[in-house]
Amino acid sequence: MTTNPKFTFRRAKIEDIAAVRQMIQELADFEKMSDGPKITEKDVIRDAGLDGGQEYCHIYVLDLQSDEQTTPLTIGYSICFYSYSTWEGKAYFLEDIYVRPTYRNLGAGSYIFRSVAGKAKEYNCQRLDFHVLGWNPARKFYDKLGAVDLTEKEDWHFYRLNSEQIAKLANTRFENI
Amino acid sequence: MTTNPKFTFRRAKIEDIAAVRQMIQELADFEKMSDGPKITEKDVIRDAGLDGGQEYCHIYVLDLQSDEQTTPLTIGYSICFYSYSTWEGKAYFLEDIYVRPTYRNLGAGSYIFRSVAGKAKEYNCQRLDFHVLGWNPARKFYDKLGAVDLTEKEDWHFYRLNSEQIAKLANTRFENI
Repeated sequence: MTTNPKFTFRRAKIEDIAAVRQMIQELADFEKMSDGPKITEKDVIRDAGLDGGQEYCHIYVLDLQSDEQTTPLTIGYSICFYSYSTWEGKAYFLEDIYVRPTYRNLGAGSYIFRSVAGKAKEYNCQRLDFHVLGWNPARKFYDKLGAVDLTEKEDWHFYRLNSEQIAKLANTRFENI
Repeated sequence: MTTNPKFTFRRAKIEDIAAVRQMIQELADFEKMSDGPKITEKDVIRDAGLDGGQEYCHIYVLDLQSDEQTTPLTIGYSICFYSYSTWEGKAYFLEDIYVRPTYRNLGAGSYIFRSVAGKAKEYNCQRLDFHVLGWNPARKFYDKLGAVDLTEKEDWHFYRLNSEQIAKLANTRFENI
């Protein structure tokens, strides 16, 4: 039971990354792709710039405080990064949003999403972009907010080359184009 | 006529940005969305970190040298940025790729794309992601390279909130969730 839930959305610190890495795995398990996550806790710390290096992503965690607890519990996370539009400039990309199953239906997912929008605004980003799988029930929530499904509306397709394809392409002699 | 075309792919310098801004507009005109680009030459210089500030995107230009010219001509550009995957870490996102109409069919688009793959490899990016409109004939080229259309294969939808929606969402009182 969770009575009087209070949320705190904040940037992750080094000591949060073990929990974040665990939640990345939980999300992959839920999606039945347990082998997906290849990066280590150490990689995440480095890539988020938490060791003082370049920051390739922004990691946020959501803490829950309720009447049943003596200390706050980390129950969710979000990972974002800056993207860029040649029409509007700096934009924000929401890569991951996750709430631990036990703590769903308390409004935590919505809290994270709204807080990410707040960050996008704070950072002067003109857009908040994200990818959603077709079967994901969260699409209803995004539709309600007025988010535009550019795949449906403008027929945008999301393409990917993996690292082997990148390497092959990068090594192709240009004469063979 | 273009005889013996030789391409040079390189990072844009401050003095290239006027041409880049012009090509951003040409691309928008071609897409019949001439009012799209809102950013100025100065914005692009700042956002690319060319004034010494933070780098939100990487801008590349393609120069052409041929028997008909005394000096190289800038005939295309590409804009990319770092993205991030919680499964594989650092990734590269190709936002724009453009070749001026007069210089198509010389292999310039392919040269830019392969060079971007080379950059993704150089920067240790595990993925090269991009969005393509359904009607774009370049999809055949991407398919040939083995790029995966994640929208078709896994039903990924690309969503967007614009700046008004971000502001509205960020200002909503959390009690009203």
